[in-house]
Amino acid sequence: MKLHNVGIILNGVTGRMGANQHLARSLLAIQKQGGVRLSDDEAIMPELALTGRNEHKLRALSEAHGGIPWSKDLDALLNDPKFSVYFDAQTTPLRFAAVKKAIAAKKNIYCEKPSANSLDEAVQLYQLARNAGVKHGVVQDKLFLPGFLKLKYLLDTGFFGELLSVRGEFGYWVFTGENQPAQRPSWNYRKKEGGGIIMDMLCHWRYVVDNLFGNVVAVSCLGAQHIPTRWDEQGKPYTADAEDAAYATFLTDRGVVCQFNSSWTTRVRRDDLLTVHVDGANGSAVAGLRECWIQPDAGTPRPVWNPDIPNPIDFRATWTQMPANLTYENAFKAQWELYLRHLVADEPFRWDLREGAKGVQLAELGLASWKERRWLDVPELP
Amino acid sequence: MKLHNVGIILNGVTGRMGANQHLARSLLAIQKQGGVRLSDDEAIMPELALTGRNEHKLRALSEAHGGIPWSKDLDALLNDPKFSVYFDAQTTPLRFAAVKKAIAAKKNIYCEKPSANSLDEAVQLYQLARNAGVKHGVVQDKLFLPGFLKLKYLLDTGFFGELLSVRGEFGYWVFTGENQPAQRPSWNYRKKEGGGIIMDMLCHWRYVVDNLFGNVVAVSCLGAQHIPTRWDEQGKPYTADAEDAAYATFLTDRGVVCQFNSSWTTRVRRDDLLTVHVDGANGSAVAGLRECWIQPDAGTPRPVWNPDIPNPIDFRATWTQMPANLTYENAFKAQWELYLRHLVADEPFRWDLREGAKGVQLAELGLASWKERRWLDVPELP
Amino acid sequence: MKLHNVGIILNGVTGRMGANQHLARSLLAIQKQGGVRLSDDEAIMPELALTGRNEHKLRALSEAHGGIPWSKDLDALLNDPKFSVYFDAQTTPLRFAAVKKAIAAKKNIYCEKPSANSLDEAVQLYQLARNAGVKHGVVQDKLFLPGFLKLKYLLDTGFFGELLSVRGEFGYWVFTGENQPAQRPSWNYRKKEGGGIIMDMLCHWRYVVDNLFGNVVAVSCLGAQHIPTRWDEQGKPYTADAEDAAYATFLTDRGVVCQFNSSWTTRVRRDDLLTVHVDGANGSAVAGLRECWIQPDAGTPRPVWNPDIPNPIDFRATWTQMPANLTYENAFKAQWELYLRHLVADEPFRWDLREGAKGVQLAELGLASWKERRWLDVPELP
Amino acid sequence: MKLHNVGIILNGVTGRMGANQHLARSLLAIQKQGGVRLSDDEAIMPELALTGRNEHKLRALSEAHGGIPWSKDLDALLNDPKFSVYFDAQTTPLRFAAVKKAIAAKKNIYCEKPSANSLDEAVQLYQLARNAGVKHGVVQDKLFLPGFLKLKYLLDTGFFGELLSVRGEFGYWVFTGENQPAQRPSWNYRKKEGGGIIMDMLCHWRYVVDNLFGNVVAVSCLGAQHIPTRWDEQGKPYTADAEDAAYATFLTDRGVVCQFNSSWTTRVRRDDLLTVHVDGANGSAVAGLRECWIQPDAGTPRPVWNPDIPNPIDFRATWTQMPANLTYENAFKAQWELYLRHLVADEPFRWDLREGAKGVQLAELGLASWKERRWLDVPELP
Repeated sequence: MKLHNVGIILNGVTGRMGANQHLARSLLAIQKQGGVRLSDDEAIMPELALTGRNEHKLRALSEAHGGIPWSKDLDALLNDPKFSVYFDAQTTPLRFAAVKKAIAAKKNIYCEKPSANSLDEAVQLYQLARNAGVKHGVVQDKLFLPGFLKLKYLLDTGFFGELLSVRGEFGYWVFTGENQPAQRPSWNYRKKEGGGIIMDMLCHWRYVVDNLFGNVVAVSCLGAQHIPTRWDEQGKPYTADAEDAAYATFLTDRGVVCQFNSSWTTRVRRDDLLTVHVDGANGSAVAGLRECWIQPDAGTPRPVWNPDIPNPIDFRATWTQMPANLTYENAFKAQWELYLRHLVADEPFRWDLREGAKGVQLAELGLASWKERRWLDVPELP
Repeated sequence: MKLHNVGIILNGVTGRMGANQHLARSLLAIQKQGGVRLSDDEAIMPELALTGRNEHKLRALSEAHGGIPWSKDLDALLNDPKFSVYFDAQTTPLRFAAVKKAIAAKKNIYCEKPSANSLDEAVQLYQLARNAGVKHGVVQDKLFLPGFLKLKYLLDTGFFGELLSVRGEFGYWVFTGENQPAQRPSWNYRKKEGGGIIMDMLCHWRYVVDNLFGNVVAVSCLGAQHIPTRWDEQGKPYTADAEDAAYATFLTDRGVVCQFNSSWTTRVRRDDLLTVHVDGANGSAVAGLRECWIQPDAGTPRPVWNPDIPNPIDFRATWTQMPANLTYENAFKAQWELYLRHLVADEPFRWDLREGAKGVQLAELGLASWKERRWLDVPELP
Repeated sequence: MKLHNVGIILNGVTGRMGANQHLARSLLAIQKQGGVRLSDDEAIMPELALTGRNEHKLRALSEAHGGIPWSKDLDALLNDPKFSVYFDAQTTPLRFAAVKKAIAAKKNIYCEKPSANSLDEAVQLYQLARNAGVKHGVVQDKLFLPGFLKLKYLLDTGFFGELLSVRGEFGYWVFTGENQPAQRPSWNYRKKEGGGIIMDMLCHWRYVVDNLFGNVVAVSCLGAQHIPTRWDEQGKPYTADAEDAAYATFLTDRGVVCQFNSSWTTRVRRDDLLTVHVDGANGSAVAGLRECWIQPDAGTPRPVWNPDIPNPIDFRATWTQMPANLTYENAFKAQWELYLRHLVADEPFRWDLREGAKGVQLAELGLASWKERRWLDVPELP
Repeated sequence: MKLHNVGIILNGVTGRMGANQHLARSLLAIQKQGGVRLSDDEAIMPELALTGRNEHKLRALSEAHGGIPWSKDLDALLNDPKFSVYFDAQTTPLRFAAVKKAIAAKKNIYCEKPSANSLDEAVQLYQLARNAGVKHGVVQDKLFLPGFLKLKYLLDTGFFGELLSVRGEFGYWVFTGENQPAQRPSWNYRKKEGGGIIMDMLCHWRYVVDNLFGNVVAVSCLGAQHIPTRWDEQGKPYTADAEDAAYATFLTDRGVVCQFNSSWTTRVRRDDLLTVHVDGANGSAVAGLRECWIQPDAGTPRPVWNPDIPNPIDFRATWTQMPANLTYENAFKAQWELYLRHLVADEPFRWDLREGAKGVQLAELGLASWKERRWLDVPELP
């Protein structure tokens, strides 16, 4: 077996998502399975080094996984020719400078979304990477969720006929922290710490819509700050000034209306934490994180409005759950594998820094739409 | 038993809704139960006459119900002092002229929504009625649906705590008529015949929101024409040029965000044909036409985002269906009874022609918002 | 990591409850988890020594847990400056003298309930401890049961509205020992050995009611000796002269009626061995040891008394089980951690020897109420 | 078939319970079945006359049941020799004078409970009836509920062994009338109109306990007024000053402790609106209105207190529902039949005016116990 070793510097994976999704379930899992197989006798093997700002956490994470090399000295790692990839999962405000430095060191780039704090910076990163001739990618994990891969299957096989409209509902109830601890960090609800659900979620909706339903050409977005006081990790009340819900509608170049609600202040009465309901002329589907339910035209009931009697149709029972015909990888791992194949075997990889910049663009336009109370067109990126 | 007879001219009840809801299940049901009881020894008894344009249908309807008096001559009926009430359920374009004439004849008015084709006419009717000193009302049936009365119970008892947001989903799949007949008349999908879902449904959402969640102060609305070709009652294809879906968001003076989708092109995967999901700081509820499900804070689950395993929470099972503690009347009958009490016993009746005009106002603003691609404020009516 | 070592003398933990709850599941579990964490770099680490009267049992217990130091010489341990805490779980008659001696040796005190055999002694211990300036606490484990913490959540979040009344049902069938061995030691049923359910359980009900429903201000209690002959551990019959059931009612300063039955002679047809049913103006709850079921006003059914037909309402199905949103520690361990934080970090700790004395006070008043056949007021302790 | 006609004057059966239970389901049902069969060729046939104060209601009730004779003139009916029985179901304050008058007219007596407003009057009625030599009885319907007949079966067959204790739980949530109408008349909650749950329910508990568990010899009772404001039948708020809950304990001459809660302010999480849990040395039972569940010694589980794990025993599943081996009559009808046999065939009938007076006695003592805050003995009636 010929192994293509790819040295990867992981910056900022000491957090919950970085450690679980990118390190344990993606890269270490790839190592354990013997790398990303390119052919019967070739595979790509990631070699890792951890970096970050907190020595204590780095050491603990390294020890928890059998002694992964680590260093606080990012510059030294970037100068080490052993590493050809720089991965960034730091908090967004730190991303721009670090990725810029890594590009200057001619490293290939892979990073979390949002790729930068502003469209301007996000585009800069894209241009720098392109000019430097390095390869680059941005995490767009929701595309690789089993439920969304099933949706893609339906699109690819023409299940829907003419696509009409899409309703996305994302979110759940995040406790205020007063009577039971909040499930999410307090910075999410503070504007000056980078909080706000629009920047967080519209980055996702951009690539979801672009990849599945057509390129977003216009956006109308209303943000709302529903819960004004929350309690932080130390049990102290604070003013939550970042919007905790967003009511957005997108239009695509295929004429599809995509209405997406995102909220930390809603109680879930649906199939999953994120559901995307797609209506087409020939059939409809509702995708959750892992499952997908379908209703073709021939299975569509014919309801009559009669509130004088109990609803005679159990609507949920009129849908069919798609079978689990395929085994699905962890969504982050799936994209890591594609990225590594892109690096070594030069396979195509759509989700680059330009695509990442589109997410930031939509979030910025969403915030502007809220402020200006109107629809905004989405211009083409340079 | 002292009976207060109230003579009512019914114009345009030969259609399905008029005949079923207003005639059979409301006024005839009131007659059968011995009138609307005011006290142990007083009741209001409606006496009916049918009018309309189609003699054949009038006669058939009359005969089906034991020979209700009928006449094609509206003027004669309006001149008959036996009748003190004029009820109008004609198609909207015909309403303005007929109601105006009835007001001139000093009849009390009750009519279907929209009360007129335009805000200007709707306001005119209100002013004419007020100046003439007659009593007036507009049908706002959804307020009296059992599911919405349960929602009102929750609001009245403070179940929600601070109200945060509301999601309404209305509609179902109306077949195109190509392969199976459409369930709704073709005029609904033709602009010049008064079709279009915005004028139809925003009239409803206005009084639903005003009465339950606070007065509507701003609207953003996107209409969509999803299915361009339909087949009519004769099986012939036609161009459907009226919008068949509306994606609207309302803000109320209580700061509540109300996001309402209305669509004839969506397949139903929810509890009912119309569901209203209300989130409050202390609890949430989802109302259908007859049922209502609740989730108080203490019953709210604490989901964790982990798409690597099947969703461990059956979200629907975490809600409680409200018990059927009260018996509910047909929603139309309930409002008819209140209107008759208003006439005879002078009890308050909020849902008058001014309220009806507000519905038309919101629909007009919704259409304008769509065209101008921006939020519009909702001015106070004269 | 800076460790604050706290030396603890454990007296009388060779019994089932002492060994399981205080030693294995509390203190050893705390050692295993690396102590009680005060911050990222500070923790409290208990260091243990066992003492007691039975050398054989002490050695066995020590060996079972990796050789915990032990000695029969309590005085020597009390003179050892390595130990700052004396914990007492002996049978109640032995507690007073031992705790008194430990206070004299300036040890901080933690002990089981009842803190003494009589109110007079219990108050003495409190005053001695206060005068000596040592810290002190009494086990009040039921407050930390998951079911009761859920009840506290409901109280803290205002679920009940105005509190009305509480019904507690505690106990189960303890076999007589004639045909199958009894599940509880025979001394519980002998007056002169300290048996009797009133002293045992009213100590608990005092802190449960005081902490959740308002301070107890009056008590009426009826004891009963239902099963007069039991068979002891050797299979020999004996006269059970201590009361085996207590029917008590308490009033609190918040006007809440708390009716608590305790019994070793009842067969359980309820949700758990201990259930507390709380009724409030806006909702009700029933808590067991771990679970809690709720019924808000809007979910309250409307029963009709009609014994001619089978009961049409499945009452249990009208309640909602609270979700398991938080992870709960062993109740004893939870209180140990708070006590240790109180010692080292001086955090507040309500459950001291004065609170312990209140439990003894209520038990004494319960016994007096039974004898005098009347309600007794509960005076303020010195 | 020889028919023994028994003429019965029914006073005050226009109310819901009188009309349903006594008239329709008891006496008319007896008529329909051909009377109370004494032997193969003899039967007792009731002949009825209605009386009362409201002519309108009397006529309506008469017409609803095929023209039962009625008259407002009670004196005339009492003078009519055709009638040998006077039945009284008026509101309690009116009972004493009417029954006294009927006794004077030498009618046999049957009446609802409480038999009078005070013990003094209740005893007077008993003595008057005895002196007059008429037969007499008081309604004690709960004894004839299927669930209680099953309990009696268990007692008669020695199922329990030595009887130990009884827990009764009666009541349910009566809505305040603010947000939904109350299920019970407002007079129940007003002291001066005869409201109060102690007089209402302790009359029942007296005969239930006396007949099943031994004669009541002592009582301790606490009343409570939990909900201070209610809304009446006209939707107007009023001060509810009569106690709406009673927490009572009774001792019987067989040494059984009977603890009975009665409440209009509790939400039901039990098997039925009234449950009686009986513990005996050899077995236990829980009776509802119609069903009864049993647990013999050999079926008794052996629970262990371990709150660290979910409760491993489904306690309800350890009980067995008694089979429906017998067909049970309506409870009121069953007692009517026994009363009629007592009249005609001189069969014994325990539930006479002296027994009725005992119910009033216990209620009076319950009120006194509440006021005096102590146990009261129950003296033998004259």
